[in-house]
Amino acid sequence: MKRVGILTSGGDAPGMNACIRAAVRTALDNGLEVTGIRRGFSGLINGELCRLDRRAIRNIVHRGGTILETTRSPEFETQEGMARAYQTLDRSGIDALVLIGGEGTFRGAGVFEEEFDITLVGVPGTIDNDVYGTDYCIGFDTAINCALGAIDRIRDTASSHERLFFLEVMGHHSGFLALESGIAGGVEEILIPEYPLNIDDLSTRLQEYLKAGKSGTIVVVAEGNRPGISYQIASAVKKKVDMESRVCVLGHLQRGGSPTARDRILASTLGVAAIQAVLEGREGNMVGEVKGDLSYTCFKDTWQKKKPLPAGLTSILRLLSE
Amino acid sequence: MKRVGILTSGGDAPGMNACIRAAVRTALDNGLEVTGIRRGFSGLINGELCRLDRRAIRNIVHRGGTILETTRSPEFETQEGMARAYQTLDRSGIDALVLIGGEGTFRGAGVFEEEFDITLVGVPGTIDNDVYGTDYCIGFDTAINCALGAIDRIRDTASSHERLFFLEVMGHHSGFLALESGIAGGVEEILIPEYPLNIDDLSTRLQEYLKAGKSGTIVVVAEGNRPGISYQIASAVKKKVDMESRVCVLGHLQRGGSPTARDRILASTLGVAAIQAVLEGREGNMVGEVKGDLSYTCFKDTWQKKKPLPAGLTSILRLLSE
Amino acid sequence: MKRVGILTSGGDAPGMNACIRAAVRTALDNGLEVTGIRRGFSGLINGELCRLDRRAIRNIVHRGGTILETTRSPEFETQEGMARAYQTLDRSGIDALVLIGGEGTFRGAGVFEEEFDITLVGVPGTIDNDVYGTDYCIGFDTAINCALGAIDRIRDTASSHERLFFLEVMGHHSGFLALESGIAGGVEEILIPEYPLNIDDLSTRLQEYLKAGKSGTIVVVAEGNRPGISYQIASAVKKKVDMESRVCVLGHLQRGGSPTARDRILASTLGVAAIQAVLEGREGNMVGEVKGDLSYTCFKDTWQKKKPLPAGLTSILRLLSE
Amino acid sequence: MKRVGILTSGGDAPGMNACIRAAVRTALDNGLEVTGIRRGFSGLINGELCRLDRRAIRNIVHRGGTILETTRSPEFETQEGMARAYQTLDRSGIDALVLIGGEGTFRGAGVFEEEFDITLVGVPGTIDNDVYGTDYCIGFDTAINCALGAIDRIRDTASSHERLFFLEVMGHHSGFLALESGIAGGVEEILIPEYPLNIDDLSTRLQEYLKAGKSGTIVVVAEGNRPGISYQIASAVKKKVDMESRVCVLGHLQRGGSPTARDRILASTLGVAAIQAVLEGREGNMVGEVKGDLSYTCFKDTWQKKKPLPAGLTSILRLLSE
Repeated sequence: MKRVGILTSGGDAPGMNACIRAAVRTALDNGLEVTGIRRGFSGLINGELCRLDRRAIRNIVHRGGTILETTRSPEFETQEGMARAYQTLDRSGIDALVLIGGEGTFRGAGVFEEEFDITLVGVPGTIDNDVYGTDYCIGFDTAINCALGAIDRIRDTASSHERLFFLEVMGHHSGFLALESGIAGGVEEILIPEYPLNIDDLSTRLQEYLKAGKSGTIVVVAEGNRPGISYQIASAVKKKVDMESRVCVLGHLQRGGSPTARDRILASTLGVAAIQAVLEGREGNMVGEVKGDLSYTCFKDTWQKKKPLPAGLTSILRLLSE
Repeated sequence: MKRVGILTSGGDAPGMNACIRAAVRTALDNGLEVTGIRRGFSGLINGELCRLDRRAIRNIVHRGGTILETTRSPEFETQEGMARAYQTLDRSGIDALVLIGGEGTFRGAGVFEEEFDITLVGVPGTIDNDVYGTDYCIGFDTAINCALGAIDRIRDTASSHERLFFLEVMGHHSGFLALESGIAGGVEEILIPEYPLNIDDLSTRLQEYLKAGKSGTIVVVAEGNRPGISYQIASAVKKKVDMESRVCVLGHLQRGGSPTARDRILASTLGVAAIQAVLEGREGNMVGEVKGDLSYTCFKDTWQKKKPLPAGLTSILRLLSE
Repeated sequence: MKRVGILTSGGDAPGMNACIRAAVRTALDNGLEVTGIRRGFSGLINGELCRLDRRAIRNIVHRGGTILETTRSPEFETQEGMARAYQTLDRSGIDALVLIGGEGTFRGAGVFEEEFDITLVGVPGTIDNDVYGTDYCIGFDTAINCALGAIDRIRDTASSHERLFFLEVMGHHSGFLALESGIAGGVEEILIPEYPLNIDDLSTRLQEYLKAGKSGTIVVVAEGNRPGISYQIASAVKKKVDMESRVCVLGHLQRGGSPTARDRILASTLGVAAIQAVLEGREGNMVGEVKGDLSYTCFKDTWQKKKPLPAGLTSILRLLSE
Repeated sequence: MKRVGILTSGGDAPGMNACIRAAVRTALDNGLEVTGIRRGFSGLINGELCRLDRRAIRNIVHRGGTILETTRSPEFETQEGMARAYQTLDRSGIDALVLIGGEGTFRGAGVFEEEFDITLVGVPGTIDNDVYGTDYCIGFDTAINCALGAIDRIRDTASSHERLFFLEVMGHHSGFLALESGIAGGVEEILIPEYPLNIDDLSTRLQEYLKAGKSGTIVVVAEGNRPGISYQIASAVKKKVDMESRVCVLGHLQRGGSPTARDRILASTLGVAAIQAVLEGREGNMVGEVKGDLSYTCFKDTWQKKKPLPAGLTSILRLLSE
């Protein structure tokens, strides 16, 4: 083992830079050289490489986004794309590759590893937090605090006027972000893909809050696979509840921002663990943190197994919202 | 002069509480008693009053929204509504009324004052900043910093991916908020009501940025009178530029948040000035700040005259964006 | 069981309000009435009570500090003080008491409970995070993010100039706050009470960073029991290293601020758990969270047993700092 | 005129990067080439140059500090140092130099310009805001918001406990920062170099607040030329007022952070104006903004004339604090 590569893939997430920094420092400390691959699998295919030494990772621990950039690469899903990616690794003497990303990244990694003789270790980085094998993904804590900041701001105005607000947050197949930011923000309603949406029931509850004299009501909506869906929900509710409503769509601003302490610490811990996993021969796994301890999950499980919403939170949801 | 009333009206804006606090302290210091009217003109009509003493205004200087709440009141636009509002003032011995709000508020004030024998002084508070007679309105500085924070966050992810972002900010008839936040954020394009929108020209310029190798492009859009309009612009552009795009709609979260230093200082200055205007017999005016000095503008001018965008900024817009 | 009391004691911590809110909602949901005791044990002795219903806890989830206020009460350490405190509970029909605080609070609770027939349940709230029986205390996450924000700001200027910065953070007997904020901030040195301070060694390392061409160096210092100690360390280092240095002392500003998502979620979870502990007859314990699960620790253990620094972090400290 | 140089000097201030960006874009737009001088006058003496093209200034508008770095250079105060600095300019074909800095910078510039045939234009950048010839200096607005954030955080805890807090902010010979942040924060007392400090009077007033039942009292202290002076004031007050007190010293964290909207807009406006001043032959001046309009002040006046505190604010100080 002489040289390790690092790439970020899929949607970027705050803390990816802190993870890169930790991985590079750990690799250098173990006598390895480190190559950065720019722009994810796409850069791996096209050989967009850069050297990662101590200077390259200075002053990045607090930066949002990823210095290595990231794209989605349809080409990597083809046999030819993978072959070219492998050639890049082979040609540049990269013995092992650390991949920071989400479900899609590890799905690709699983196939790549099956077809080619290559050492891969994954690190979960996605604000959706929907990766099995880790309680938290890098970027999630920053994203909930971002959404929470929006809820707090809306509450200022919600209690000045008498109004209904829909705040749309990210969350493709899962409601982690909506659930945790909604509970932390003490909102009235949380709509997530895990629970079926019933406009009638929602409207009835909103009507009750209105009667109870609540001065402002906030509904957090996970966008699911239909960004902008809040406009339709608001319009459907409008037909049943006589209440002016407003919509905010946070969109990609949830991906940005300087990472929180928790995200940087998780990112640093997993960055160190990824290199140690490489050195200990734990390839084919994603490193994660479950109940405070390091864990290792094979790529297939990370996206095939469904990660449940935290039971502790769903059980108190009704008590704390409404 | 024994008792002064204060109300907030129209859309709430961060800093209104700092203004209330300053006005109350100044009034008390001059031997006046102060009555707060809750929920704007609607509360004035219905006699929703509260006492504002030093205790009532403790620990509010940093709070978003308004402790007096605000609503829009269609009833106040009727002769009967105004008559009832006048009765409230008469009955409670309120000799003068300070109104914190925007265009609509001063439009109503102008009529109210013509028809009834009442002393009114206005203070400009609106994040739209579109009130003639003051360079800045209370809440505007907080709102541009809020929009700016969103731009900064999007930039993190914009430079990680190669993408086009539309960020929709407030601004009904005017582009102050979009213009200042866009220049401060160094975005590529700013679309405001003052300039006609040409999708072809916009698409051409976006295409050029793409060719020039820009890794991410941000377009700030003033919502005008059609909140959610960004989705239509994005979809129109999509037909001409081959670039994935994303939309964020800030909506009412721009109204919230703890006011910035500048907003609190402006709000405090104008709160003091409003009471002094009452004492000096300058009724019928809105107090404002023009080029750093206090100014007084009759209600009619505040909404009839069109406040121009700052020439200093429009002249450097092309230099600083693109 | 008919009525439960809640008080906050010791140093205040962000998230205490979210905890009060969750406890009150859970109690009401279980048919209990809730009495708030103001100003900690001192208010308990003097009978400073208030009713906590749903209205009382509206719009507090995001507020720093504690609506119940807190003081330190030497009187409660006397037999007579405790007797009077007991009388307050007895007289007002409070059957059980939830105490939100730190080490000192639980020390007092342990004695109180031994001497009087009273049902007590504790919740850990202290930015020092030094309570045994829970991985995290309410307020800690907000405090590390506050310290981290300071580190990030200093880094901006540290890399503009060539300089040495000492940033003093809280932490009486323990270095949790310095350790986690320092690792998250990627600082060069972390000085904590757990490790003996050697000025010579420190100076040697600082000299090395200087030689290695580092443009700015940040040392995080836990104040221990000597607030302001950084000035002495800076002055001792000055004699050995030829480098201009600057000191910042965060002090109590680390106690304030709107709580982070994590702190609000922890606070909400523990607030619910505290009432459930009361109902399940788990008195005499502090509820906490260990490795993601609820835990119950008798009062004595919470302050007698020494909570170790997280091994995962101390082991990677050298790798990530320097 | 073919090539313009840019340097930042003295203490760094948030917004310097936005200024550099605007100046570079304006210069390029006018067909000039731009050279960056690193590390202020020291780098000018030693020929530390870099090319500033459009790529170099991407993604810097929101960054604190200065990409060109800054140092204090005793050598530049010597005849020989200036001669070497001139040689650098001469050798590299730099026809004009834009200097972003404060009093000390313009003092040096005045001498440099007298002794050598060189075109200099200044831009005021200092969080102290003590430069004559401009209402605001770049960085000041960010710094007051930073100090204000600290005040708000302390207030959270001040109203939970009953306590006295001293918050020390920057301000060498002037109290701009303490005055504006203190008024915006609604603090009880503001101690600035412009007004003589009388411990007896201060103690008497603090005693009165205590009697009036104020739950927490905040005193903002300008450090003047004695950083850490708050500890002595606190200790002197302690002898006269029976009240526990705490000290926070913000120090250099006030210099950092992402610049506010206002600072970026001012920085951008002055960056454009500096290059235009070069092109219009207005050398020997600092460009500034007075009452909203561009202004030009010869170097000597910028530091010889005393900039007064804003009269509007000092006149309402007593009304708004206490």
